Amino acid sequence: MVAPVRVVPNAAVRASSLLRTIQYTHPPSCPCHSNPGYHQSQPAVLPRPASRPGHRRYATPTKTTEALKEYAFEMAASSIRFGPGVTQEVGMDFKNLGARRVAVVTDRTVEKLDAMKQVVEGLTREGVPFEVFADVRVEPKDSSVKEAIAWARPYQPDAFLAVGGGSVMDTAKLMNLYTCYPDADFLDFVNAPLGKGRPVDKQLKPLIAVPTTAGTGSETTGTAIFDLVAKKAKTGVAHRNLKPTLGICDPLNTRTMPAAVMASSGLDVLCHSLESWTAIPYNERTPRPANPILRPAYQGANPISDVFSFHALRATVKYLPRAVKNPDDFEAQSEMLLAATLAGVGFGNAGVHLCHGMSYPISGQNPTGYKHAGYELPAPLIPHGVSVAVSAPAVFRFTGASNPERHLAAAEAFGVDISNVKRESAGEVLAEALTKFLADLGDQPSGLKGLGFGSEHIEALVEGTLPQARVLMLAPGLATELETERDQLRKLFENAMTH
Amino acid sequence: MVAPVRVVPNAAVRASSLLRTIQYTHPPSCPCHSNPGYHQSQPAVLPRPASRPGHRRYATPTKTTEALKEYAFEMAASSIRFGPGVTQEVGMDFKNLGARRVAVVTDRTVEKLDAMKQVVEGLTREGVPFEVFADVRVEPKDSSVKEAIAWARPYQPDAFLAVGGGSVMDTAKLMNLYTCYPDADFLDFVNAPLGKGRPVDKQLKPLIAVPTTAGTGSETTGTAIFDLVAKKAKTGVAHRNLKPTLGICDPLNTRTMPAAVMASSGLDVLCHSLESWTAIPYNERTPRPANPILRPAYQGANPISDVFSFHALRATVKYLPRAVKNPDDFEAQSEMLLAATLAGVGFGNAGVHLCHGMSYPISGQNPTGYKHAGYELPAPLIPHGVSVAVSAPAVFRFTGASNPERHLAAAEAFGVDISNVKRESAGEVLAEALTKFLADLGDQPSGLKGLGFGSEHIEALVEGTLPQARVLMLAPGLATELETERDQLRKLFENAMTH
Repeated sequence: MVAPVRVVPNAAVRASSLLRTIQYTHPPSCPCHSNPGYHQSQPAVLPRPASRPGHRRYATPTKTTEALKEYAFEMAASSIRFGPGVTQEVGMDFKNLGARRVAVVTDRTVEKLDAMKQVVEGLTREGVPFEVFADVRVEPKDSSVKEAIAWARPYQPDAFLAVGGGSVMDTAKLMNLYTCYPDADFLDFVNAPLGKGRPVDKQLKPLIAVPTTAGTGSETTGTAIFDLVAKKAKTGVAHRNLKPTLGICDPLNTRTMPAAVMASSGLDVLCHSLESWTAIPYNERTPRPANPILRPAYQGANPISDVFSFHALRATVKYLPRAVKNPDDFEAQSEMLLAATLAGVGFGNAGVHLCHGMSYPISGQNPTGYKHAGYELPAPLIPHGVSVAVSAPAVFRFTGASNPERHLAAAEAFGVDISNVKRESAGEVLAEALTKFLADLGDQPSGLKGLGFGSEHIEALVEGTLPQARVLMLAPGLATELETERDQLRKLFENAMTH
Repeated sequence: MVAPVRVVPNAAVRASSLLRTIQYTHPPSCPCHSNPGYHQSQPAVLPRPASRPGHRRYATPTKTTEALKEYAFEMAASSIRFGPGVTQEVGMDFKNLGARRVAVVTDRTVEKLDAMKQVVEGLTREGVPFEVFADVRVEPKDSSVKEAIAWARPYQPDAFLAVGGGSVMDTAKLMNLYTCYPDADFLDFVNAPLGKGRPVDKQLKPLIAVPTTAGTGSETTGTAIFDLVAKKAKTGVAHRNLKPTLGICDPLNTRTMPAAVMASSGLDVLCHSLESWTAIPYNERTPRPANPILRPAYQGANPISDVFSFHALRATVKYLPRAVKNPDDFEAQSEMLLAATLAGVGFGNAGVHLCHGMSYPISGQNPTGYKHAGYELPAPLIPHGVSVAVSAPAVFRFTGASNPERHLAAAEAFGVDISNVKRESAGEVLAEALTKFLADLGDQPSGLKGLGFGSEHIEALVEGTLPQARVLMLAPGLATELETERDQLRKLFENAMTH
């Protein structure tokens, strides 16, 4: 600890006063400046706003002032406990919390796995009363989330425990949110423009998350995603108060993933890390929030998220192929679970952009009923990770020019010798590295055509992407003017047809 | 998000069952195994235990079983908001929390600085009621901490705000703890063996920390350090529930640090990162806690703390010399504040070891009344960072053999070409790099002699170090047998006399 000492005001103090003064010199006149949530908190009248709320530049700035840029970032992450067999501790955690009514949230598949067995044994051993909701829907819809909330509200849990993949963890976050706000309308907290984007202004009940896949990183983030069926869009709620109290990452729980699930969930990790690493910098985002509670969780790349994202990228490149090819490679599986969590901290605070924004209509529309090999579900399915990674070569070819250094560093993480690569080739080189990585991983579509899409689907894909304001606002190089943006997305989908 | 799928039990499931079985095969018979806090929670009868509680190996293991090694780690860190001018937001934070009685904790020096001005203006602007306690003592003693607690208890704050360096933040943590446990005895929560090591089993009041130095990282940790005068030892309370809710890192607040303070606080960062990077691995620590609440915050190096610690090390090597030499280098100052925070997350979860353990008697005993240049305090003072760094060359020369790869990587972070360095020279090479770094930084003692110590003080230094069980248990290569350990410490102090 360092002793503060008496200091005479000096040049440094004067400089800092000046800096503070400068920061105050733009008196806000547009309501979105004095209240950055203003636009966001309006109900979405138009499904396609002419300029996206919260975008880094306004298409129609006021005459007297332009929105101030962000000047700060905030990093928040769940506590993480990591170790093989650590699921056995969860009963003690709830006992330590003094919980008397725990809502255990899972799905019909995970319900039968060893993770749930450990959880039930742990809670029972410690005498913690609980009830199980096992009806979480894979790829949740607003209707399935509402059913889960309807189950939770009368039970009045004092704590939540999610055991499963992203669908389970996200549903549990929403059950927690809407039982803590019993009078809230479902759209109140949903991301604008589809919802009202109301900030979560109080602490929720403790939520412990036990992931059974190594992908979403949802155990560390304040994000919950679902399909808003009436709008034909993936959206969700994103606020740091939604994040779990504790993520319990037990590599024994991910051993049950078949290779196909390991691959697609790992590709989700890959894109979380690449997108957050290349997202626009936090201090290029506008508007600067007038109240810290309005600072979005997805705030752009920042010096702390960078550390997480880049580390996770390197780990994924190293361990995902091993984890997919050898089901007995426990080291690689463990490293992938860790990478998923670290990437979660990265993108949970920096955000994702085009791969994720474009993935939602890809997996949602699935026009020819594509069913990914290795998934034993009865219905057609483009797994989330597959839908995200399929556009990655096209996306990073497009974003390369925005920040060649970062794209070159990413290419180097894939093992590319970048010593003689020109800056203007950064996007191309990264795209080639990604294409090779996906091909080597095996069983991945070599573009949207492999998922059953053709040029006749592009317009619908573009229109399905446009409402993803929350992530598109972080896409480097994407225009703010609607028609230009539409053209850019059109070309991105065209380029993603084949790698 | 990845869809969980139906999985038939397979080889992987069987393997994980086997692993779980193995983990259960050591039925605990010694009470410290079924309750790892057992030894820790005993009052310290002997100031010098024959074997340190919580040590990685027991000097006297029971016949039937050896303590199980740790198998998991837990990462917890405060949320961090970082940006120039971000102090201005703190009033809104307390308003958002609904706080009605905020205890603002600071010291007589910081009270006059711009940081406090911003804080008071912010709270006033938002109409948040608060009272200021400005009597924090630099390098707090148990008596000064007790005075602060005596001030806080009748005020009954619903939230705390610390504005200052480590002394202020640590005192505020203890005020929070002991107002939340109004009936607790002061020694209840103090680290064993000096205190009773009681775990903090409930959530404390919100605490927001605004650091004004770039050193302690206390804004992210659950550690609070003070002098226990009767025992002539530095000790404290360490539990993750003590960590602030939010650390507000505003580089404008550290501009007021004179160069000497910048240097010594930066050396604290350097040692935080180096010690946590080289601490014993978490899975070499014994005993494995029987309840997660007993898992210490200082748990040994782990894959997540490594990311933070090594990143902070590289940043400190790069930016500390610039920040010390040029008071107008705002970039270097900002990077040092960030490095301090990142190192805080690293050591706050991994721990520190010999440099810190040995520093407490160095700064506490100060036998010749050394007064560090550039500090404008009336009394003699060996600043914490100086007392920590002075032994660093000797320490890492000693620990090098425990993990040559990590010591070589650290040397490389100092710019040493390690391509032709032998593994057995790792400690020596890192020691040389540190010696050069300290000399180049300027105004640093070239060993304990420069601080007024001679060989006649070594016995007292050794005896003052031995009670630091919490950090010594993480020192690689240190013996568990008391007399051997005493010899090793004696040699370490001898070697630290001159660099």
